[in-house]
Amino acid sequence: MDQKLQGYIDRLNALHFKDMYENDFFLTWEKTDDEIEAVFVLADALRYMRENNISTKIFESGLGISIFRDNSTRTRFSFASACNMLGLAVQDLDEKKSQIAHGETVRETATMVSFMADVIGIRDDMYIGKGNAYMHQVVDSVTEANQAGVLEQKPTLVNLQCDIDHPTQALADALHIIHEFGGAENLKGKKIAMSWAYSPSYGKPLSVPQGIIGLLTRFGMDVVLAHPEGYEVMSDVVEVARKNAAESGGSFSITNDMKEAFKDADVVYPKSWAPYAAMEVRTDLYGKGDFDGIDKLEKELLAQNAEHQDWVVDDEMMRLTKNGLDTLYMHPLPADIQGVSCEHGEVTDKVFDHARESLYKEASNKPYIIAAMIFLAKVKNPQKTLQALWDRAVSRHFQ
Amino acid sequence: MDQKLQGYIDRLNALHFKDMYENDFFLTWEKTDDEIEAVFVLADALRYMRENNISTKIFESGLGISIFRDNSTRTRFSFASACNMLGLAVQDLDEKKSQIAHGETVRETATMVSFMADVIGIRDDMYIGKGNAYMHQVVDSVTEANQAGVLEQKPTLVNLQCDIDHPTQALADALHIIHEFGGAENLKGKKIAMSWAYSPSYGKPLSVPQGIIGLLTRFGMDVVLAHPEGYEVMSDVVEVARKNAAESGGSFSITNDMKEAFKDADVVYPKSWAPYAAMEVRTDLYGKGDFDGIDKLEKELLAQNAEHQDWVVDDEMMRLTKNGLDTLYMHPLPADIQGVSCEHGEVTDKVFDHARESLYKEASNKPYIIAAMIFLAKVKNPQKTLQALWDRAVSRHFQ
Amino acid sequence: MDQKLQGYIDRLNALHFKDMYENDFFLTWEKTDDEIEAVFVLADALRYMRENNISTKIFESGLGISIFRDNSTRTRFSFASACNMLGLAVQDLDEKKSQIAHGETVRETATMVSFMADVIGIRDDMYIGKGNAYMHQVVDSVTEANQAGVLEQKPTLVNLQCDIDHPTQALADALHIIHEFGGAENLKGKKIAMSWAYSPSYGKPLSVPQGIIGLLTRFGMDVVLAHPEGYEVMSDVVEVARKNAAESGGSFSITNDMKEAFKDADVVYPKSWAPYAAMEVRTDLYGKGDFDGIDKLEKELLAQNAEHQDWVVDDEMMRLTKNGLDTLYMHPLPADIQGVSCEHGEVTDKVFDHARESLYKEASNKPYIIAAMIFLAKVKNPQKTLQALWDRAVSRHFQ
Repeated sequence: MDQKLQGYIDRLNALHFKDMYENDFFLTWEKTDDEIEAVFVLADALRYMRENNISTKIFESGLGISIFRDNSTRTRFSFASACNMLGLAVQDLDEKKSQIAHGETVRETATMVSFMADVIGIRDDMYIGKGNAYMHQVVDSVTEANQAGVLEQKPTLVNLQCDIDHPTQALADALHIIHEFGGAENLKGKKIAMSWAYSPSYGKPLSVPQGIIGLLTRFGMDVVLAHPEGYEVMSDVVEVARKNAAESGGSFSITNDMKEAFKDADVVYPKSWAPYAAMEVRTDLYGKGDFDGIDKLEKELLAQNAEHQDWVVDDEMMRLTKNGLDTLYMHPLPADIQGVSCEHGEVTDKVFDHARESLYKEASNKPYIIAAMIFLAKVKNPQKTLQALWDRAVSRHFQ
Repeated sequence: MDQKLQGYIDRLNALHFKDMYENDFFLTWEKTDDEIEAVFVLADALRYMRENNISTKIFESGLGISIFRDNSTRTRFSFASACNMLGLAVQDLDEKKSQIAHGETVRETATMVSFMADVIGIRDDMYIGKGNAYMHQVVDSVTEANQAGVLEQKPTLVNLQCDIDHPTQALADALHIIHEFGGAENLKGKKIAMSWAYSPSYGKPLSVPQGIIGLLTRFGMDVVLAHPEGYEVMSDVVEVARKNAAESGGSFSITNDMKEAFKDADVVYPKSWAPYAAMEVRTDLYGKGDFDGIDKLEKELLAQNAEHQDWVVDDEMMRLTKNGLDTLYMHPLPADIQGVSCEHGEVTDKVFDHARESLYKEASNKPYIIAAMIFLAKVKNPQKTLQALWDRAVSRHFQ
Repeated sequence: MDQKLQGYIDRLNALHFKDMYENDFFLTWEKTDDEIEAVFVLADALRYMRENNISTKIFESGLGISIFRDNSTRTRFSFASACNMLGLAVQDLDEKKSQIAHGETVRETATMVSFMADVIGIRDDMYIGKGNAYMHQVVDSVTEANQAGVLEQKPTLVNLQCDIDHPTQALADALHIIHEFGGAENLKGKKIAMSWAYSPSYGKPLSVPQGIIGLLTRFGMDVVLAHPEGYEVMSDVVEVARKNAAESGGSFSITNDMKEAFKDADVVYPKSWAPYAAMEVRTDLYGKGDFDGIDKLEKELLAQNAEHQDWVVDDEMMRLTKNGLDTLYMHPLPADIQGVSCEHGEVTDKVFDHARESLYKEASNKPYIIAAMIFLAKVKNPQKTLQALWDRAVSRHFQ
């Protein structure tokens, strides 16, 4: 009996998360607090097993399907890593190499690729009102196909970023904060500034700030969303954040003043995003095929961005926070670093370099978060299976 | 001793299929009736094992090479699934990322990618006289390289669609009919209409109708090939169909009247294809690099197609068949569905929706058919190995 | 106790190669003679185990990352094969599908893709002064991330061709010569002509001739580098070759006369490459974004090449060698074969055809060379692990 493993199992035993089995992961606020905590515990447990060279392969064969409708490096590799550590082979659905343009429906494609799929991971974050809806279509399709006996198993969906939420990112971020503060119980009363920051590019997804305010308000934190006027996020998610804060005993507020947000903050999360309203317009233009309109909108948005070049995280800004440069600085990466990847951008290279190691650790949680989501959806009794994997004692790396 | 598994083994014991070992799969009519039946039995046995959570991995490592010279979703995923369930990692030969343009020969490429390959799956269906010939070149090359000691193993070829036949599709289709009718012995005297149908696109491969008439004529069925004048298929395959029908006690006929074909049919398989003669012209134009000529041909063919917009499967057409809407409607997918993927197309959405579940089950056979082909080519005594896998009792999904 | 396996283990026991553990493979001349020999012995041992159907999987899970900044067929498949036979899943970092253009640094990308990576294989051979430097940046990054606790393991780098060396090619080539001559000890005093040859294309990497003269001078061979005036290779590598030759008791010389090089040669390795000086100019032009300049340079280089169309390996040229057509003719492939892939090129089809089987065997070493490099970097006691794999006796192909 390994003491540390037993600790993870004990924590899981205290939680109710039965409904995650054979289920999917769309948005963090559709999950209960216990379910969210189960993801954290399992992510840490799987990491612990890997560090101890214990194989966590629960699949002898099976596919993990990935559908990336937007570019990705770290999420793509995190998904590949998670599938691999559980025993699944990744098969990417490259829509350009497929016959999808032939006019087949989402229902059909989803079913056709899933005959031996245990997981489907999707990134679809480009157009408002589309990405999450697409994921639901996929899940409805494979659920129906499973019930009809067409699919022997129902693959579980992992939302790898939609127009509303970016749950694998937000959970990896939250787990990093939990690690840094020594436990979720220590987050109560801590202030986090989820702030817009200037970027010379445009149209970055809203799902990161939305994911953060939708998740971190559940831990009794004082969550401040800061952005210039005109850079509002989805109002539905703001409602979620308000409701969460009220229930968790924390607070949620919005300001148009970056400095106010940074004042005495324990954690800062400065990152560029596009205005929600503009993204809605863009989605409409796209729907109409009005590419001149899209070009014009892009120019307007870049000009609008340029008015807020002072929304940059530098030494001076960090001095406002609780611990100056040592205050936890977070980012989903890649960041627009001044003097490195752009002339003016989200953060100075000094602030970024100081935080680099922490940022990379933040990112290192993502493969385990994804693996935990899959594990919880695909394993009936995770505690028992963790123990069985430990007892099976197959080495990940045989020497 | 599992009774159902024993049933599959008993059936295999009654068949002669030794020549499939270390062999390849080009065309169904190059295989004996016993060999074809062995594929069906093995496909069902492998599915049964997977449904019972028994790992069917016969390879601890090894590659399955895929070469897709045309777009593909379901065949690509079927091949990936089949390889995965047998333990092979898929490695795609993307001719654009390779140095093939550098002028290396087919013989060289085939050998260079095969040092650890157990399977090569190829789709090459675009040009008449090319695809099947290319597959033979590949097989000749790796056979020679194996004999010369350059390759430790000879990878087996799986034809994933050529200009002549689409064996994995035709066999998956046939197995679906067998399941629906409760056994191959029940196909005798059943009527199947393999019919052309209108499509607003052009140049769809002939290998599906050719594969169907070349295979289903072996089961004593009354096979009717229907198409407008000018949409003839390859005459060699027509000869195969005639010969098969004569030997199996069924019949084979050709008509230019869709209604006549549908009359009292037990199974209908309506699908668009390009005229063989036009595809020959296109191949010549392509060989000469005459792209203006190809454009011109395309326009002519679309105009020719448009003259046959009445070749559509709707309620009225289905009423002519043996069981109306409940008559088995088949398609390799994706279909051109009227009102869904096009204004006028192969089938109305009502007929398609009624058949959807059956169509998806039809498609679900393909991964198992491919796995069975590989198994028969790579395992010396399939019956013994099936039993050994069952006795090994490794879980596919460990819980 | 298997006698042949014991032979490999005995040979390894006599060598000092401890420093390869947890290390990387950049250039052959950075490795000791013992380390180079250890790669050869292990490559042969791994091949022997595969031929005897013994699984060599040392990884139950884990990723092998590939980064190809230039097209590749055989190296891509060799890397995939090597990873697969050791149990790693290949995940390709396709820079076009990633967010790398977003401005992230090499350090960041290298870390982000490596959370579960045991190996990183890189081809980056296009620009002088860039490829090897990039590989060092990658290794420095993941080493630092491993030391900081960001990465649980440090992936080992395999140089799949840089601007300086092509070690997996050179080692595969050397192993072929060793096999052909019955042992490395028989190479002393043998003459090898590493010669430029005419090609109608331009800009072929220098890393092959550089790799060959940098490696084969270590075996006491008489290495002659032949090329037209103006086709000099990197002077640093020439220095390496001179030093090696002096130490090994062989010789190294340069000539501008192909015939002189071929005279009485035991081995010939004729292959086109671009002049080093021109490649430096090209790299500068590329740095400045001067694409007109690059086009102009290309034309000049092709014209320069065309002046040396007599540098072709034909019957007459082979007659000058020690054993005429039977003299060992080597090439990394694909070759520019006269009358096959071009009108005038490196070699006549007669000479090539005569050597084909040998050339393919030469290429067949590469997967094993790569696997050996990984094994030596990732296994603490390779002798013990070889024995353990043999005793574990898991079949690669279960029947």
